[in-house]
Amino acid sequence: MPHSPTIFFEDIREGEERRFGGHTITEVEILEFAECYDPQYFHIDPEAAKFSHFGGLIASGWHTASLSMRMIVDHFLEQTASMGSPGVDELRWLVPVRPGDTLAVHVRVDEARPSKSKPDRGLVRTSYTTINQRNEAVMTMKAAGFFERRRP
Amino acid sequence: MPHSPTIFFEDIREGEERRFGGHTITEVEILEFAECYDPQYFHIDPEAAKFSHFGGLIASGWHTASLSMRMIVDHFLEQTASMGSPGVDELRWLVPVRPGDTLAVHVRVDEARPSKSKPDRGLVRTSYTTINQRNEAVMTMKAAGFFERRRP
Repeated sequence: MPHSPTIFFEDIREGEERRFGGHTITEVEILEFAECYDPQYFHIDPEAAKFSHFGGLIASGWHTASLSMRMIVDHFLEQTASMGSPGVDELRWLVPVRPGDTLAVHVRVDEARPSKSKPDRGLVRTSYTTINQRNEAVMTMKAAGFFERRRP
Repeated sequence: MPHSPTIFFEDIREGEERRFGGHTITEVEILEFAECYDPQYFHIDPEAAKFSHFGGLIASGWHTASLSMRMIVDHFLEQTASMGSPGVDELRWLVPVRPGDTLAVHVRVDEARPSKSKPDRGLVRTSYTTINQRNEAVMTMKAAGFFERRRP
């Protein structure tokens, strides 16, 4: 069965802003992700992490990015005719993410323009901010994504 | 037990280059990561993915980044006095990663300089390229990292 999107390139508006998500990260989740993908001591060893300049266990930045992506897919990309992303700029880890933190995502559409070389798609540039329960920006990034056009 | 690194900021040389890793990604791994963190149809549904412009199942870009990070930790960061990363620039997904691909990482140290504001650490800028078995660059990024100084 092919994917049946409802939101195409033409439906995405420059300046559009949304906030969504709300995922509380546990110590077990932090340890499981990091043991698999980022086994630095301050991500996998709560005791040793106390001696680090973070003062305790923190989530891998790639974990924060992956959890943010899940919220972005669930609340935005899943309904769209997304064709994937060529990349991300200015990915910043600003505040450590610790066990018990609750993360949400704010998205702003910075630019939406038809592709010059490929008439079947448009390029959308978005700014994402991942926010914790104290409303601190823990991570920011600027992402590009291709979306199918409804009427190429 | 505190972490006992052997490689400090002073031991990291500008211009240093290394290549390491060699991880063969399976369809099961691609599906498991994507079901958790990036459930877009071309990452979680091998049949529907055939109808996408990728022509089949591909790994999430965040999965490729996380697998690359694991190789970077195992072969480089684990031995160092790493203090984490403030961020990444120019993260690019250049070629789709498909089941059965074998990934390695090439790293180049672009810059290593003492921090101006914090005398206990230095900032190291590195370029990473993730390469497949056909020697194609599937992902590139420029990362910054802080490392403890041996003699602050």
